[in-house]
Amino acid sequence: MVAPKNFLDFVDSNADKFIDRLGEAVAIPSISGDAARREDVKKMAQWLSNQLSQYGVETQFVPLGTQVLDGKTLELPPAVIGKIGNDPSKKTILIYGHFDVQPAQKDDGWNTEPFELHVDKDSGKMFGRGSTDDKGPILGWLNVLDAHHTLGLALPVNLRFVFEGMEESGSEGLDEYISSETAKGTGSYFHGVDAVCISDNYWLNTRTPCLTYGLRGIAYYQIVVSGPGADLHSGIYGGSVYEPMTTLIAIMSKLVAPNGRILIPGVYDGVQAADSNELEKYDALDYSVSDLESAVGGRIANSDDKATLLMGKMRNPSLSLHGIEGAFSGTGAKTVIPATVSGKFSLRLVPPQTPEDITQKVTAYIEEEFAKLQTKNTLKVEYLHGGKAWVADTNHWNFEAARRATEAVYLQTPNYTREGGSIPVTLTIADNLGVNVLLLPMGRADDGAHSTNEKLDISNFIQGTKLLGSYLYEVAEIAK
Amino acid sequence: MVAPKNFLDFVDSNADKFIDRLGEAVAIPSISGDAARREDVKKMAQWLSNQLSQYGVETQFVPLGTQVLDGKTLELPPAVIGKIGNDPSKKTILIYGHFDVQPAQKDDGWNTEPFELHVDKDSGKMFGRGSTDDKGPILGWLNVLDAHHTLGLALPVNLRFVFEGMEESGSEGLDEYISSETAKGTGSYFHGVDAVCISDNYWLNTRTPCLTYGLRGIAYYQIVVSGPGADLHSGIYGGSVYEPMTTLIAIMSKLVAPNGRILIPGVYDGVQAADSNELEKYDALDYSVSDLESAVGGRIANSDDKATLLMGKMRNPSLSLHGIEGAFSGTGAKTVIPATVSGKFSLRLVPPQTPEDITQKVTAYIEEEFAKLQTKNTLKVEYLHGGKAWVADTNHWNFEAARRATEAVYLQTPNYTREGGSIPVTLTIADNLGVNVLLLPMGRADDGAHSTNEKLDISNFIQGTKLLGSYLYEVAEIAK
Repeated sequence: MVAPKNFLDFVDSNADKFIDRLGEAVAIPSISGDAARREDVKKMAQWLSNQLSQYGVETQFVPLGTQVLDGKTLELPPAVIGKIGNDPSKKTILIYGHFDVQPAQKDDGWNTEPFELHVDKDSGKMFGRGSTDDKGPILGWLNVLDAHHTLGLALPVNLRFVFEGMEESGSEGLDEYISSETAKGTGSYFHGVDAVCISDNYWLNTRTPCLTYGLRGIAYYQIVVSGPGADLHSGIYGGSVYEPMTTLIAIMSKLVAPNGRILIPGVYDGVQAADSNELEKYDALDYSVSDLESAVGGRIANSDDKATLLMGKMRNPSLSLHGIEGAFSGTGAKTVIPATVSGKFSLRLVPPQTPEDITQKVTAYIEEEFAKLQTKNTLKVEYLHGGKAWVADTNHWNFEAARRATEAVYLQTPNYTREGGSIPVTLTIADNLGVNVLLLPMGRADDGAHSTNEKLDISNFIQGTKLLGSYLYEVAEIAK
Repeated sequence: MVAPKNFLDFVDSNADKFIDRLGEAVAIPSISGDAARREDVKKMAQWLSNQLSQYGVETQFVPLGTQVLDGKTLELPPAVIGKIGNDPSKKTILIYGHFDVQPAQKDDGWNTEPFELHVDKDSGKMFGRGSTDDKGPILGWLNVLDAHHTLGLALPVNLRFVFEGMEESGSEGLDEYISSETAKGTGSYFHGVDAVCISDNYWLNTRTPCLTYGLRGIAYYQIVVSGPGADLHSGIYGGSVYEPMTTLIAIMSKLVAPNGRILIPGVYDGVQAADSNELEKYDALDYSVSDLESAVGGRIANSDDKATLLMGKMRNPSLSLHGIEGAFSGTGAKTVIPATVSGKFSLRLVPPQTPEDITQKVTAYIEEEFAKLQTKNTLKVEYLHGGKAWVADTNHWNFEAARRATEAVYLQTPNYTREGGSIPVTLTIADNLGVNVLLLPMGRADDGAHSTNEKLDISNFIQGTKLLGSYLYEVAEIAK
């Protein structure tokens, strides 16, 4: 154990304070995808900046320009960047996280108000939107800063922070900022960064900490099919017009087979099958079919083979149909022919797939299938956002430090995982800075990020705070 | 012209008052399909009863029991029944209408608040939810009563009213009431009714009044597909689970072809093709492809042949896909795997199809198609509501009176139409009372019932009021 005992003790004895602070953060509904919540995202940026400042971090707001959302031009929420420590004898670690969240409403199926942190001491779980994605982890860093500031302990490394408020909406504006800032060379805010640590993903199961060295990319689309000038009564017009929903459903049904096989021609080009070496890695992971099924709350695994399941999320592309905008989505029985319907779907990408190449294939295929339908509806295929996949070198000291910290805090050897999710900015940072990037998750597989009743276990928040702090000490130790 | 001139003049000179009253009615958001609006439906019942009473109609509220909606047990809104006149030398006409409406929200695409009547004197149109379906027509009857009461004119017939607040939600409770009330024989509220008039449909175009002698039936379903215990993150789980949306979309795509042909085996059993006599009737109607396309606001007619288009809505079954409950339906790009999704669709039925028979075929087919998909999701097929088709005898004096009234008010011979929509209670009334039922619409083909920016033309409201009144005088004259 390299982290000092008074740091670790401080974390334990301040657990209630840390939980209260998480409650404050969850109470700000910083939904980046909802124009009506934009001020709350900005409020969250201000809150975070205030928190960082009180522990000695010099912060700045980085304006990121504007976007068009729901037909309105909106200012993007600023990124919050921060700097603490400038000792050339120490390593410099860049921390990334995000303070925006996915949409949530109680009547989506939440048991408690999504924007009120519900701490259930019996189960040891804290429920609330953003609890695990990604407010819990960024507050883990605040807790580390709090401990060092309060105890008068020097941090073992120099830290740089980049926190953004648009991660759940394609990180708009951030890529450009990172690229242009990095291009400043020695004058860059990121000059001197030796490695990057991101805590924005999850353990593979509910018992084994992990280090993550790969992420899938993403390409998100909507298929917009239009027909009449306004919604129609299905009694009056059903049978005499081409209905946009019929057209859209026909197209959506041609994207992916029930077993998950993607039906878009060429989409698997260049994606190699796993060789025996790679298969062994998946077999070595602490994971089982029942881990998956208990995490998702249903017996819906698409294979009985552990390695196949792991490859399904870690190293193979997938396609999910998310929903339809513009159609009837309420309870009850509305007899409507919707005028314009937008089918939403996304692909998770793996090397060598790129959003650009996939978009060409997706668009060509959908246009071809649409033409076959011979309807008089109109079609638009829109690429909404995306990012490439990423894979890192696990032999780097950055991963080694994280492994040692995990073993010190959890007394367990971590799983080495690739993640099915996408944090496109990870790749932007890795590519621009040219340094090693580590994903060091705080939460568990069953946290339900993006879902109803999202939660973070209290133990993951507290031990996770120790882990983040210990990681900094291990970096200082190993990379001396 | 049989209707007295002072009645007709009263209608013209009181137009503003009538419009204000329609504004009052539209302002009550009496959405029967929304549990949260149940009190507003009851408020609307009270409002209507008060209006009827002030013109000498004896009214009663008929309790219709309870229903389960959105998981809650709710009292059904009462029907409002009314009686005026008991002269055995006069005919007795039963009037049916409904005071509930379809859901509406401004951000569905309305140009104005749906529950504030927007009177545009330039275009001569009145926009608002319920303006044409069915508050405008029931207020037409109020206008007729107002005129006779104010002028001290005796009504030419005895009137009975049945107004319900659940028409847009399957007329729950009303069928049972009509059946049990009718069964009372000479003690029945409906005893002595000679014919029925319902104003709850639309002209075939925007220029020719019509009398309607047929309606399609309806059978409304939802396909519920479930998988995980809660919504999942598509990055974390996409590729390793069977996704309910993929399953649901696959099934929905197998219900109807892009050209409108229904794909459920046996669904067309017994539905005869039109013979040349019948085809001639459709050719005789004042209608064109451009009538359809201007009414729907798009060049989406599924045929270039007028008779084919008319048969598509009047005498052939159809199937519309309405939407999906439980999937992502907002703007933006949510990366969710929805846990439980309910696909909504309905068929419009024609003789000899019945909801019972169609439900068997629909359920068997969907279960068979689901089995072929070999997913581990679960399936439920639920029949939500329905009603049989109806066809009336146009040689009856009830239709003849309506024809003469139309010619007197509009100086035009009406189209004789069958409607694509469904008013299942029409058949209940016709079957139980054993008398002729006439549909005498007030609004035009482009009114947008069930749609955004629903409207009623001022001229249809005012001339329509004259038409309803004149019809009563023609009944008295022709059936002396």
